[in-house]
Amino acid sequence: MVENPIRFGVMGCAEIARKLARAIDFAPNAVLYAIASRSIEKARNFAATNGLHEAVKIYGSYDELLDDPCVDAVYMPLPTRLHVHWAVLVARKKKHLLLEKPTALDVAELDRILQACELNGVQFMDGSMWLHHPRTTKMKELLSNFGQLNFIHSQSTTSATPEFFQSNIRVQPDLDALGALGDLAWYCIGAILWAKDYQLPTAVTALPDVIRNSAGVILSCTASLQWDQLDRAVGTMHCSFLSHTSMDLAISASKGSLHVKDFIIPYQEHSASLDFTLGAKFVNLHIGWNVQPEELHVASQLPQEALMVQELARLVEGIRKSKSRPDVKWPETSRKTQLVLDAVKKSIDLGYRPVNL
Amino acid sequence: MVENPIRFGVMGCAEIARKLARAIDFAPNAVLYAIASRSIEKARNFAATNGLHEAVKIYGSYDELLDDPCVDAVYMPLPTRLHVHWAVLVARKKKHLLLEKPTALDVAELDRILQACELNGVQFMDGSMWLHHPRTTKMKELLSNFGQLNFIHSQSTTSATPEFFQSNIRVQPDLDALGALGDLAWYCIGAILWAKDYQLPTAVTALPDVIRNSAGVILSCTASLQWDQLDRAVGTMHCSFLSHTSMDLAISASKGSLHVKDFIIPYQEHSASLDFTLGAKFVNLHIGWNVQPEELHVASQLPQEALMVQELARLVEGIRKSKSRPDVKWPETSRKTQLVLDAVKKSIDLGYRPVNL
Repeated sequence: MVENPIRFGVMGCAEIARKLARAIDFAPNAVLYAIASRSIEKARNFAATNGLHEAVKIYGSYDELLDDPCVDAVYMPLPTRLHVHWAVLVARKKKHLLLEKPTALDVAELDRILQACELNGVQFMDGSMWLHHPRTTKMKELLSNFGQLNFIHSQSTTSATPEFFQSNIRVQPDLDALGALGDLAWYCIGAILWAKDYQLPTAVTALPDVIRNSAGVILSCTASLQWDQLDRAVGTMHCSFLSHTSMDLAISASKGSLHVKDFIIPYQEHSASLDFTLGAKFVNLHIGWNVQPEELHVASQLPQEALMVQELARLVEGIRKSKSRPDVKWPETSRKTQLVLDAVKKSIDLGYRPVNL
Repeated sequence: MVENPIRFGVMGCAEIARKLARAIDFAPNAVLYAIASRSIEKARNFAATNGLHEAVKIYGSYDELLDDPCVDAVYMPLPTRLHVHWAVLVARKKKHLLLEKPTALDVAELDRILQACELNGVQFMDGSMWLHHPRTTKMKELLSNFGQLNFIHSQSTTSATPEFFQSNIRVQPDLDALGALGDLAWYCIGAILWAKDYQLPTAVTALPDVIRNSAGVILSCTASLQWDQLDRAVGTMHCSFLSHTSMDLAISASKGSLHVKDFIIPYQEHSASLDFTLGAKFVNLHIGWNVQPEELHVASQLPQEALMVQELARLVEGIRKSKSRPDVKWPETSRKTQLVLDAVKKSIDLGYRPVNL
């Protein structure tokens, strides 16, 4: 543990907050300082069931957390509809913000959050933890030798339980109105943009396979992202609460191909693998290949969520020490992801017409 | 070798004919009886360089091959534009037909071929060799436990050489006018239809990423296949002569997922693998999965092309012995594949509008 670690407050006791509380504990430059829920009982229960240290402050309201001057940064796993209200308040209280995805219901809301963060000189980052895994860095390194990226497919599916469809916030229009698009496609869209170095597509088109629940929330959808005539790359993404668990990322480039089947949450926490092929040709008579995919294992000392927390804390430390401006990379990647997500939604609403960006 | 094996004539000395000549040799119920080219020199050269048995008859014209009453079945790897002319003649000569894909330039042409085959009581089969691999049977067996198939992605890409772009028949409008769509997407469309038990999609939509050569032949394209509102499945397919070699098939169903990275030509000839996952869940805290994909290896005594030849010979033997009608399964699967391929082309020609089937 470093001297003066960044003190995190967790705002909301959602299931995912358990993972992040653990991650904050693991990050060497961060400490879990406080948790808050709308009721003190819920917060106390969260602290007890997750074995939080006695020193962790427990608040029965979000306002109390925000009024605590010792809280440096806030992790916010609230339902999406509440993001803009509370995230703007976090920024106004000069606290740095780790915001769970999807960042907002649309880019206009996100812009209000980002503007508040900029105005108050606080760092913004969304909860795309997989971007912080060393495997992701390794993939980018490999892709730099792949030539032109022509086709990217990404999907995230999970076969939700009947209880999920009854009561989970992700299928309730007044909480997470974007459904599977906000929850799962955030990663898929993020992965395609990441592969393309965050160059925005010129057009986004949803496919007419959308499935909604009775309240109109998207349970499953597919979309394509197209880049302009110069490089003419295409990405397809599919997200669904109705299929068996999958987290695929497949990239085809002029000189190589890459496959990962667990890109969002690796099968195991401390090691993740990827498959890639370079220089593949068919052998004489085309009765086989000259190479088979190479499997690379990438170890991770810390869970990817802890690496994410560590990165945010590092940036906060930099801002604190040198009075520098917050890093713009993270808010920019979030904004582009939200822009494309909005475009998918718009394409669906327009009857699957292409939406230009 | 069985008594009275089916005697194959190979019509055309294309590169792929080398693989099929070898496959006919391997198939226990077939024999390579004759080869024909438009010139006797070319045919002799083919026989010599491929070490064909001295007994194999060598013809300097296709007509001579067709006039030989000892030829039971013809394998035809001619450029697609020539299929309808020669395939109809093959059928009229009462010879069974193994036709290289794409079967025709459009379904109207294919229907002329299929009608000729039906009228003359000869068996038709296209050259989709991967359908005959025991791995394919194993995949179908697994899929029967997967519940509803929701999403299927299939792609076939190969990074063609400058010579290919200069002179290969697959990029010449007067020979294989369908380009990558005819050559590579035949397999991808076929795989998606195969997964859906040949239930035709209700609509097909091409994505606006088509790349053509200066003569207008498709070098790369992507399309989606949608099924109706009852099961609302979707398939995406991508084919390209501009990306590194890939042959992916990925299936997401309600209870399982399946991945194959070499579905058309296995990495090795005598064993092929597949990955599948059933019952995947995240472990507590969502920091990993309860299972990892299971890898299955499926051995194949004979190359898949030999199994294809064996299957055709078996059907021909049945027709010969019991005077039964030809099997309708193979012409039907070919026709459905061609129908969807036509729809992709039509969607491209209509500016990427959905085409209903």
